[in-house]
Amino acid sequence: MFREKIKILDCTIRDGGLINNHQFDRRFVREIYKGVSLAGVDYMEMGYRNSKELFSSKDFGAWKFCDDEEIKRVIDGIESNTKIAVMTDVGRVDMDAVKPKSDSPIDMIRTAAYVKDTDKAIAMTNIFAEKGYETTINIMAISRDQGPELEEALHQIEEECKVDVVYIVDSFGALYQESTERLVKLFKNILKSKEVGFHGHNNQQLAFGNTIEAIIHDANYLDGTIYGIGRAAGNCPLELLIGFLKNPKFDIRPILDLISREMIPLGKKIEWGYIIPYAIAGMFNEHPKAAMALRNSDKKENYREFYESLLNTALD
Amino acid sequence: MFREKIKILDCTIRDGGLINNHQFDRRFVREIYKGVSLAGVDYMEMGYRNSKELFSSKDFGAWKFCDDEEIKRVIDGIESNTKIAVMTDVGRVDMDAVKPKSDSPIDMIRTAAYVKDTDKAIAMTNIFAEKGYETTINIMAISRDQGPELEEALHQIEEECKVDVVYIVDSFGALYQESTERLVKLFKNILKSKEVGFHGHNNQQLAFGNTIEAIIHDANYLDGTIYGIGRAAGNCPLELLIGFLKNPKFDIRPILDLISREMIPLGKKIEWGYIIPYAIAGMFNEHPKAAMALRNSDKKENYREFYESLLNTALD
Repeated sequence: MFREKIKILDCTIRDGGLINNHQFDRRFVREIYKGVSLAGVDYMEMGYRNSKELFSSKDFGAWKFCDDEEIKRVIDGIESNTKIAVMTDVGRVDMDAVKPKSDSPIDMIRTAAYVKDTDKAIAMTNIFAEKGYETTINIMAISRDQGPELEEALHQIEEECKVDVVYIVDSFGALYQESTERLVKLFKNILKSKEVGFHGHNNQQLAFGNTIEAIIHDANYLDGTIYGIGRAAGNCPLELLIGFLKNPKFDIRPILDLISREMIPLGKKIEWGYIIPYAIAGMFNEHPKAAMALRNSDKKENYREFYESLLNTALD
Repeated sequence: MFREKIKILDCTIRDGGLINNHQFDRRFVREIYKGVSLAGVDYMEMGYRNSKELFSSKDFGAWKFCDDEEIKRVIDGIESNTKIAVMTDVGRVDMDAVKPKSDSPIDMIRTAAYVKDTDKAIAMTNIFAEKGYETTINIMAISRDQGPELEEALHQIEEECKVDVVYIVDSFGALYQESTERLVKLFKNILKSKEVGFHGHNNQQLAFGNTIEAIIHDANYLDGTIYGIGRAAGNCPLELLIGFLKNPKFDIRPILDLISREMIPLGKKIEWGYIIPYAIAGMFNEHPKAAMALRNSDKKENYREFYESLLNTALD
């Protein structure tokens, strides 16, 4: 019944960190790591590996930087088969600070890149691969970039890059099933030697549905977060994904415990999920930043005005 | 770009009424009617047409009964092209109290029935059709009843019933895209002279995704509710459906206004939406009543215990 090749990656701390400047404390991150380990999740992404030359640790928590030493403290003493991933952005990582895999607790480095940054992403990824890491390239904002440049980028990755997995990232929560199907088929068709991954955003309550659509068309790397936490509308809820998948190695119960104990209280302090301005941004295929600003203003429930503002931006 | 035949039906008051014993006041129902009329919604379902011999109007609000006179008061003076629907349950309606269409503000009568009640639903529906109403049969709990009895029921409806539309009702929020696709194709294949409808529940955040799937496979009647209100996990959010459909007659803005002004405050008084025990009930293909009881208890966030209880029920 189940497809052995399917791997799930929890990015609770990484994508959730975009809500709170990566300020999760060590206890919280250890609890998440314990829970996803018990649940049989294949990978857990801890955060970004950003250069401390570019961002101040006064402004951001530990998971903006993901030092090897901090990761070691988090995983210390916890029995686990869950691999550790971190994300890098093109142009924000100190490549020299990335040790060989044999000296690091990190297993996988994922490089987030727009289509236009494909050359840089390939160069970085090849270095990470040479250092011994599993690698992915996560092509962001793909709903804006579905034309010939994307195809060219995929051909280039297939031919020049040692990457293991290439992700479709629906940054704007703008994909529907038909667009997801088309993209997965395009990726599978060009990337003959790579696996395909899918990372959804839940603006229109389609992150889980689109992830199922990606599974149907043979994407094998699937991102989720506990209770759907993540910037703005959040992500595909990991608990739904585990409930859907048939591989007996997965156990939903530790994730349910984390939602009861950690995510319900956290949801009272920071906001994510199905919120109308994020849905509107998804419909318009727009970055959520305008909607995020609205939610921090005294007009947070002025949906019509927000809709009109995006409509006017699109028309002007 | 758009499919002319697609009709959308708002069941905010009907399915939402299952949360509060149909106690919406007249002002609220008038506001919803104004909004859906401005939005170009094809039908608005007001509630159930239940016999007052069977239920007391002390225990239930007006929308448990949907008297013609109360409907007239609600729609009085509001310009609208939106048709009025009510729902009947097999065995709960006083057939003699249903006047001919020409004497009633109601346009459509929808009969909710389990597969086993198909004979009764056909008999009732034929009477409603003879009285001049548009009619639907809504086959409930279909995720539990996908075998030969369903096929037999569909053949019987096709041959014996004057009904206009037959709905797939995912009462338990247990369908995924592949099961939705299979059901819509089955319905379309047998019901050559009828339209097919889809009514989703949002236990697993798939009500909208499954509605899109139903559209892809040619279902033309689609239910939604404003901000997804409805029993337990609620329904397909009407605003997402309108955002997705291309027919220029639809305008999302009046629905956004209703969410800002009516649904956000209402959501602080009554509960619906993505709540883990409802998601678990959907995964187990179970009626949400056990989860609703849990939400009214002091164990409302004890998800693991609830999961174990459904697991044990299934195994024992």
